[in-house]
Amino acid sequence: MRGTLPGFRDFYPEDFALRLHIVDAFRMVMGRFAFDEYDGPVLEPLELFTDKSGPEIVGQLFHFKDRGDRDVAMRPEMTPTLARMVGARCQALRKPIRWCAVGEQFRYERPQKGRLRSFLQLNCDILGESGFRADGELIAALLSTLQELGFTANDICLRLSDRQLWTILLSEFPLCDGEAILRAIDRSGKEPAEVTEAVLRSILGDFTDRFIDAWRGLVACNSLDSLREFFSAFPSHSSSERIDALDGLLKFLGAMGFGDFISVDLSIVRGLAYYTGFVFEVFERSGAGRAVAGGGRYDGLVEKLGGPPLAACGFAIGDVVLSNLLVEKKLFNQSDVAPDLWVIFDDERQAEALEMANVARRAGARVAYELRESVAEDKQLKQATRAGARFVLARCECGDRWRIKNLSSGEAVECSRCDFLTIWLAICENDEICLANVK
Amino acid sequence: MRGTLPGFRDFYPEDFALRLHIVDAFRMVMGRFAFDEYDGPVLEPLELFTDKSGPEIVGQLFHFKDRGDRDVAMRPEMTPTLARMVGARCQALRKPIRWCAVGEQFRYERPQKGRLRSFLQLNCDILGESGFRADGELIAALLSTLQELGFTANDICLRLSDRQLWTILLSEFPLCDGEAILRAIDRSGKEPAEVTEAVLRSILGDFTDRFIDAWRGLVACNSLDSLREFFSAFPSHSSSERIDALDGLLKFLGAMGFGDFISVDLSIVRGLAYYTGFVFEVFERSGAGRAVAGGGRYDGLVEKLGGPPLAACGFAIGDVVLSNLLVEKKLFNQSDVAPDLWVIFDDERQAEALEMANVARRAGARVAYELRESVAEDKQLKQATRAGARFVLARCECGDRWRIKNLSSGEAVECSRCDFLTIWLAICENDEICLANVK
Repeated sequence: MRGTLPGFRDFYPEDFALRLHIVDAFRMVMGRFAFDEYDGPVLEPLELFTDKSGPEIVGQLFHFKDRGDRDVAMRPEMTPTLARMVGARCQALRKPIRWCAVGEQFRYERPQKGRLRSFLQLNCDILGESGFRADGELIAALLSTLQELGFTANDICLRLSDRQLWTILLSEFPLCDGEAILRAIDRSGKEPAEVTEAVLRSILGDFTDRFIDAWRGLVACNSLDSLREFFSAFPSHSSSERIDALDGLLKFLGAMGFGDFISVDLSIVRGLAYYTGFVFEVFERSGAGRAVAGGGRYDGLVEKLGGPPLAACGFAIGDVVLSNLLVEKKLFNQSDVAPDLWVIFDDERQAEALEMANVARRAGARVAYELRESVAEDKQLKQATRAGARFVLARCECGDRWRIKNLSSGEAVECSRCDFLTIWLAICENDEICLANVK
Repeated sequence: MRGTLPGFRDFYPEDFALRLHIVDAFRMVMGRFAFDEYDGPVLEPLELFTDKSGPEIVGQLFHFKDRGDRDVAMRPEMTPTLARMVGARCQALRKPIRWCAVGEQFRYERPQKGRLRSFLQLNCDILGESGFRADGELIAALLSTLQELGFTANDICLRLSDRQLWTILLSEFPLCDGEAILRAIDRSGKEPAEVTEAVLRSILGDFTDRFIDAWRGLVACNSLDSLREFFSAFPSHSSSERIDALDGLLKFLGAMGFGDFISVDLSIVRGLAYYTGFVFEVFERSGAGRAVAGGGRYDGLVEKLGGPPLAACGFAIGDVVLSNLLVEKKLFNQSDVAPDLWVIFDDERQAEALEMANVARRAGARVAYELRESVAEDKQLKQATRAGARFVLARCECGDRWRIKNLSSGEAVECSRCDFLTIWLAICENDEICLANVK
């Protein structure tokens, strides 16, 4: 029997439980930060992405002609869809727009650790607000999500950078392709230094050595003071404005208690072409492995898509690296999926037994029983034990009464069909059979 | 600005809330019935579907060659993926396997009311149990999901049928293509009677009139007695066995209180070729519109896919018809997404305000505030009111204290930064500002 395509995953129940755990934590935190969830189609017109995503993503599209001869592509990211949706209803939406999404994305890459061809992405965006507090709110929501999953500042670190400071630096090299330089820098952590240098040399020519010196100087800055000192060599009003904004952003996040999670790190530039301001990536604290999450400000994109000019920032968390890290750090314990109640009955008592089973379900219990007919009651009890059921409900040896038994403690209580619900609710409330309560 | 492809949907927050409401209800009921959730890839090898789905579905595939020259298809249904996954680990999985899934499916059809090219499908299957109680358990889980969403037996009806009774009838026409006949019958509700008759005539030739008489007779049966009488004309041991099993299934469902939802209706045969036993569809009570859900037994499929022989039955609910019906019957009320707490602060009090905001979030509150700097406090209050916030937290006119105010009742209570959490939790517990409690 064939398996999945390379880079795609089957989620067996134990794998799915981890995925749902991540999504549930994200949705809970998004609610607390007053974000509203949206979604768009998995399949979109090809041009939505060829026009708007960076070349790295466009080269990885799953695209084809549909039966109606349309050029279509499976979405590789949410942002172009988000920009279209917001653009279409921009007047009616209250600003700032605070939206989040949980969506599957598709990129034709070489499958490897932390990178697959299909992955779940948690997205969160604020549109219509250009001030740094919006960036701060986003980063706070991101770090709160990771905290909710159990990560502390000992486990992870958010590296915060600013594309505008890079733009100021690149303006010192006015004849060179700044976007290509940033792409090379973004890739520099993932390939040998010689490769990066060769690429930079092809772009910068004689300016290469001067640029590399400046690059080294900038990425060595890990504080506001060192940034101020670095940019004193390139005096401009805008650099000190940006450093002040970074100061404000750090204070905003510090007030919420996230100071320990954050380090200033200008080596982060993000691969996508559309970022315009603060950018950030979250890594495992040691710096090993791929980014767990990333994001930043992309003020021009909604307008580029034909919508109104709208300031915007956002982040995305992929499930592949995050799942690996949760397992590595032992932060996910398979939640208990054993039945709360197992009902044992012979065929003649089916009607009564099923009625009580359904009553318990309506009260919220996870209930199971043997589905084959005419199975001996002792065999049914073995099934219940093997399934890890907490309680069994079985007929008493004689008469019309039933017995609820705690399989681990052996404690039991009798009931009639009529008082079953009352007694079951008392058991749930005390999380055990408590005879004082059920009498 | 372009929109989505035809037959695909943008889910704005109000649309998404309805989708999530459906998924949440399904997951809750699945938990109570002790089903485990799984998922598979959206993109699969083409042959998984061309080999295993009925011709109607294969004709609607979104398929293409990927960059690695593989023939791939976007999934049109979950069952082939389920069969592969279960087949791959069959030995290790405890039987019966009770699995459910929430997955997007893709079919290139003419978009129309209740039918789109992409839709969410809720799937639920029991594998490894051939007795009718497994069918009953599934139908109970399906009807419980619809009950959880607010439908009563006045709103919907489950039409229950049996493919084996049809097979017994078709054995009277041994030289004709039985599958083609069932497909024609499945389509008969959706096209003019002349079309169905012409198709049947092309398959049955001289036997057509005899078949049509038998068909009319069978679909007129709406009780066990009338079925017994009908099949007395075709005496066979297997028909009375099947009618007894149907009797058992109806008793099983009756014991759980679902009797009023169910009618025996042999006009249901299901379009897919792989069904082998009981089949069912849920419709709006009047019979109008498309099926809300459908399913049945498909005992041969896992083996056909190269796995071990495994009895199986399942159902699927699509979100398109279901969403329309929930709106039509006014069973969905947009849940409240207004902030619980809106924090008003001037720039100097940012640190204190954000600390309290985050404390409230950790306690579960939905919290928001102005993201622009230096906005006057009365303007911030207007924002809070416009956003529908229940409470505002703002600095008292003088001193270091803060005031929590219920925006609808006007009631207010003062607190310091240190006792904010205690007072906020007391407010949450009473769902209002209760001065007796917070003193």
